[in-house]
This record gives sequence, structure tokens and C-alpha cells, in this order.
Amino acid sequence: MKKTPRTGGAHPVEPKADKASVRRHNLSLVLRTVHEAGETTRASVAARVGLTRAAVSSLVEQLLEHGLLVESGKTFSGQAGRPGTVLKAADTGPAGLGVEINVAYVSVCVVDLAGADRVRVTEPLDNRTAGAAEVLERAARVAAGVLASAAEHDLHPVGVRLALPGLVSAGTVHQAPNLGWNRVEADGLFAAALGGLWAERPELPVASDNEANVAALAELWFGGLGEVRSFLHLTGEIGVGGAIVVNGELLRGAHGFAGEIGHLPVDENGPLCRCGSHGCLEQYAGQSALLRAAGLEPGAGVEELARRADAGEVRAVAAVEEAGRRLGLALSGAVNLLDPEAVVLGGIYPRLMSRLSPAVDAELARRVVSGLWTPAAGRLRPASTSADAARGAAAVVIREVLADPLTYTP
Amino acid sequence: MKKTPRTGGAHPVEPKADKASVRRHNLSLVLRTVHEAGETTRASVAARVGLTRAAVSSLVEQLLEHGLLVESGKTFSGQAGRPGTVLKAADTGPAGLGVEINVAYVSVCVVDLAGADRVRVTEPLDNRTAGAAEVLERAARVAAGVLASAAEHDLHPVGVRLALPGLVSAGTVHQAPNLGWNRVEADGLFAAALGGLWAERPELPVASDNEANVAALAELWFGGLGEVRSFLHLTGEIGVGGAIVVNGELLRGAHGFAGEIGHLPVDENGPLCRCGSHGCLEQYAGQSALLRAAGLEPGAGVEELARRADAGEVRAVAAVEEAGRRLGLALSGAVNLLDPEAVVLGGIYPRLMSRLSPAVDAELARRVVSGLWTPAAGRLRPASTSADAARGAAAVVIREVLADPLTYTP
Repeated sequence: MKKTPRTGGAHPVEPKADKASVRRHNLSLVLRTVHEAGETTRASVAARVGLTRAAVSSLVEQLLEHGLLVESGKTFSGQAGRPGTVLKAADTGPAGLGVEINVAYVSVCVVDLAGADRVRVTEPLDNRTAGAAEVLERAARVAAGVLASAAEHDLHPVGVRLALPGLVSAGTVHQAPNLGWNRVEADGLFAAALGGLWAERPELPVASDNEANVAALAELWFGGLGEVRSFLHLTGEIGVGGAIVVNGELLRGAHGFAGEIGHLPVDENGPLCRCGSHGCLEQYAGQSALLRAAGLEPGAGVEELARRADAGEVRAVAAVEEAGRRLGLALSGAVNLLDPEAVVLGGIYPRLMSRLSPAVDAELARRVVSGLWTPAAGRLRPASTSADAARGAAAVVIREVLADPLTYTP
Repeated sequence: MKKTPRTGGAHPVEPKADKASVRRHNLSLVLRTVHEAGETTRASVAARVGLTRAAVSSLVEQLLEHGLLVESGKTFSGQAGRPGTVLKAADTGPAGLGVEINVAYVSVCVVDLAGADRVRVTEPLDNRTAGAAEVLERAARVAAGVLASAAEHDLHPVGVRLALPGLVSAGTVHQAPNLGWNRVEADGLFAAALGGLWAERPELPVASDNEANVAALAELWFGGLGEVRSFLHLTGEIGVGGAIVVNGELLRGAHGFAGEIGHLPVDENGPLCRCGSHGCLEQYAGQSALLRAAGLEPGAGVEELARRADAGEVRAVAAVEEAGRRLGLALSGAVNLLDPEAVVLGGIYPRLMSRLSPAVDAELARRVVSGLWTPAAGRLRPASTSADAARGAAAVVIREVLADPLTYTP
């Protein structure tokens, strides 16, 4: 978490701001406005942001020249005055590369400036049987293939964001218990591996984030949350990841380690967890725990579990309902602490929702002190299928382009 | 929680800002800078805020005229150049009135512009035996006495902030289980009662807040946290209140109900709580639960418990240690979720710290996944004796004066 100065906003306002920085700010403003609208006109942008039509036209020209905006050829006359040419974010040029490395797979995608998931490769890989360096090299190999495909579509990632199931801070994976990683310098290892495979852009900057964090951002940007801007996001995998979004921003914590709901204790004397504690939520609601409780092999997969639960198979139903009860217990504590507008369940959970959500809802209704968490309130939601950690990671790179468009030179 | 616009900072920067609003902003900046420094000079303020010496002198003149700053008579030559007259925030004039209404007492204080607690009256009152209107009238009676004393010191509160142990939102106490309140319009009832007793200022605006929230702000502003700006704050009373501070700001939640750590479940089948759930933290670590577990009468008080625990009396020691273990369990979950820099224990807890903190620390060391919460790290702290909810509430009023000094007319 970045520290704000102690005086909190204590800087003088000068009547004059530097002209170049004003233009940079306004270029970003116009580009973001078009990005959010999807398709719009110069006149609509001007009305939305409160600049003159002439100022917006000049800013749009520069963004067109840089290949960040394109004119669609259509015209649109929704506003008063003569019809305007429709503008949209470019679907070629600068892009983001997202790389999710999880326990059982690697998923890589390229997202364009409009936010669309344009190239995607997901490879099942057992990442627990290899060391960190080898896993990162495998991921780099998948990424190099994706970069080659993207180049064929004239999409050129300007940065890479890794999404990892662990405590990540400043380029280092502090620990990822389910991968067996401790103090792994993921950014550097991945960059070196990719540099050897993708010589065209050896300078591609690499940064890491927690996978639950970027999955939550994907839900915020691409999911079906509507007006909801404050929520708790869980991703059920082998572990249970969590992220907290407050007013559209991630709450990262003092060391970047916030959101670890998978290690919230739900039974103080419960089974030993890989983190060293006992009775952590993921010992009940993680994928391995669920499959075991349902009497399935570790490799069976959540689809098999869901099929059995939907068919009413007793052990499968009991396993999912017990996981739901424990999830509800942990979430009650989290909701009492954070008072979010919604809780989103992602990863393996959406597929299990019909049996899972009644059990979660029952605990929330019973235990949340505000009384706002009745099942009828609809605050518990499955994650969108279009929002995942890899797309969120790639979109973080795109946000950097949107925030300062001139950093990208075509 | 105030919603930020969806476009997050999407407003154009114009090279020219309105001159009157620039001056207002800069008056606040200068006043806050002096407030934080305690004592300082015009030259130091100018160096600190980045305005010219002349601009600062003009702003200081206006603040002196308004009675918000005073010259102490001393001179100070710490900076280069000729010695400057020492400035400080006025210790007369605009002030804040804080009124904490808790289960067993009412505490009222007046805080001056410098933040000092100048007039304080605390009355033990059993607020569970009376209705909400009567309790608020009692509190108004205490407040009227405090206002009269304050006037003798030429201190004139410009607003009242109530601190209440419950879910508070927009002037209404949604619920306060330990007071037995449901949907009580506390602001209006208190304002009416005070208006009848203190006719001099019938227009004194009244607002309510959760007591744990303002206690946390008091710790932030007046406690011994040093550079810590992100922490979790607990107040042990009959209930257990909680508040979350992130980068120096309260995390209030979507409905203003965040921080309810007292209702985090620590044993799903534990005793029934007043909130309707089972096994909430306050059923183990609240004052009533602690006294009961130690074999003491409900009226015995925490001082008696602390005396017995310090003397090694077996039941008292066991009660405090068990409360510590449950606190540690709940806090482990909260720390895994929020990754704060510190946890502050206030209310009855500082007096019990010698027996309490080893038990809390043991759970944190065992269960926090980051491994950062070893006892040696010193992240668990007792609240400062100078920081309580009434002072925090009064200081919130002062912050409003600091944010826009011209709203106060002498």
C-alpha cells in the first residue's frame, strides 16, 4: 500500500498548472472516456468531460495519430447538431499480456486497448511437481507462443502481468504454500526466460500480482456487477484466494498481502493447513478438500463433482454443502468486518452454485449483524465467466496505457 | 462510504482555478500545517507547503483575524534568516464537543483547535435500564454542563459528534444490541434535548458515529502510533467494537457498518449473542463475558478483574487468557484479510495487557499466513490512555474547521 503524505492532500493549489501535464492528463481523460463508452463521438466526449468541442477534437487527433483511437466509419446523430463520426479504442497496437500461473494450469491471454480478450492459451500443467524456475519457464514458453499469435493480429503487448496464487510484493513471491514457493523472484525469472524466447521485445516489463487481486479487477471491469464498486471476491482453486475492492480500488494492505480469506480460521482445531495453521477455510472449501470429502480422486476435477452434486449423489451434495457452510462462516466474519455491497464467488464455485449458495446464504443471514444479508438481497453472486485472473492481469497493463497514453510509442 | 464517480478522477484539469476557492484551500493548508506542527513560524510553514513567504503571511493574517491562529510571543530562529514569531492554533474560540454514550457511562469532552482535551465529564450511568430517548436526554444534560464550563474558558463548540456502540448511518442508530436500541434517530433526539437545555446555541449541528470509529481516529491523531497509518482498532467494553483505518482514513463500508469484529464468529456453536448469532467474539472477550468467566459479579468492573489476574488468581488468569486466545483467533482472520501494520487494543484491554497479549500473540504467530506477526514484531499494542471515543468524536468536529476555516465566524 502506498503511503500518502501525513498531511493528506496538503499541497498548495496554484492557479496555473503546467501546460504539457494538463494535455497529458486530458489525453488520458479522453481516451478513458472513449474506452468506457465503447463507441462514442467527439461531441459526446466533450459533453461528458466538460471540455470544449475544439479541445476534444485536438486531443482526439493526437490519439488517432498514435493509433490509440480509430474512427469506425459509422456516424451517429444521437446528440443535437450534425452527425459525428464514431470513435472507439483501437483493436490493434498496444496490448496487455496476462499470465496466470496456478497449481494445475497456466493461462495466458492478450487483451487489446478496448479490453477484449483476443488471444488465449490455457495449458493444464501440474506445477507442484516442478521447481519455481521451471514453472516460470513453462509459463514463458506458453507466453511466447501467445505473443507470436498476437503479433499476427498486429497486437503488441507493452507489458506483462503475472498472476500468482500467493503473497506477492515488489516482484517477489513471498510465499505460495500450494505451489511450495518461498521467496521466489518471479518477475526476474520470468523476464529472463521470456527474453530468451521472444527476442523481438526483450525490454517487455514484467510485474507480478496476487491472482485473486487481478481476478477481482477483472470482475470489476468486465463482470456483471453493475453499480457495485465495493465487494469481496473469492477464487476457489486448490487454495482459496480472496481480494477486497473498496470504491473500485483494491485494498492491498500494508505489505500487499491483504485478502487472504483462505487462511481465515473456521475451526480452531481443524486440519493442518499448508500455511502451518489449523482449520483454515481452504481445508474445507478448497478444491482438494472438496474432492476428498466427496470421495473423489484428486485428479477428478470440479466438473465431475458438480455433475454428481447436481444428480443428488449423497456424498457429493454433503461435501458441497459443508464447504458452503464453512464459506458462509468465514464470509460472515469478513462481511461484519468490511460491510461490502456484494460477495463474488469465482474459480470453481460458480459451477457448484446451486448447492453451494443456499448453505452460504444461511450462514450469512444468521450471522451478519446488519441484517442486510438475506438470500433475497442477492448480495452473493457467482463470478462472470468472462472475468478471470489472466484477463484481469492483462487489463492492468492496459490501464497503465489509458492512464498515460503517450508512454506508448507506435 | 461515499461513492466516487465511476470514471475515477475523470475531470479535466483547467489551467486556471477559481481564485476564491484557491484561497480557501490554502487557508486550510496553512492552518493544518500549524496544527500539526504544534508551534512553528511563517517561514517554516512556507518551506513546508511550497508557497511563497508573502503568500503565507497574508494567509496567516486572515487566520489571526479570525481567531484561529495566535502568536505565542516567543520567537524562533531554527530556520535561516531573521527570527520568526511563533504561531500556534488558538486555544480559545471554535471547539468540538464529543459525547460518548456507552452501556455503563456517558463521557463528554470539549477539544480545542489544537486538539487538546479541555473539559471532560464522565458519568457512570446504566444505560440499559432506560429507553433511548431518556439516555439521550441524560447525555444532553451532561453535555449542557460541559458547554457551560467550556464557555467560561472562551471555548465555543461549533458542532457535536455522538459516539455510539452500534451500527450508525445517516443520523440513525440502525441497531445497538447492547443498548437494546433499534432504529433510534439519535441525532434528532439529542439535538432536541440539548436545545432545551442550552439555548445559547440552538443551532449546534449534531451528527452520530460508531464509537469504535472515533476511538480509532483518536488513536490515529493523539495516540502513540508514530508512522503507523493502517491499523485495526478494537475497543473492549460490554461489547467489542472495531474499526479499520487504511492510510489514515476510516474504512466505513458500503453502509457505514464496517469494523464489527465483535460479531466475528470464533466458535460456530458458541453461546447465543445479543445480535442473534452464535459464538461471536464478544461472547468471550467482552467485559460481561470476562467477568462471568472469572467468577465476578457483572458490576465488579475491570479494575477488580485486572487486580486478581495480576495477583495470579487462577480463575481470573484463565478468563483473561481464554479471552486472549479468542481475540487472537478472530484477529488472525482479520489480519489475514486486511494486512494492517498494527492492531490496537483499547477500552478495557490495556489494563489486562500483561495476561492478554501473550495469548493473543500466540494465535497471531501461529495463524497469520505472512509470518509477520511474531510477538517480537510488536504489532499488537495497547491503546493510548489519552485517546478515547469522546475525544475522537470532538476532534472530528475540529477537523471540519481545519478543512474549511472560513465556515467558522467568530
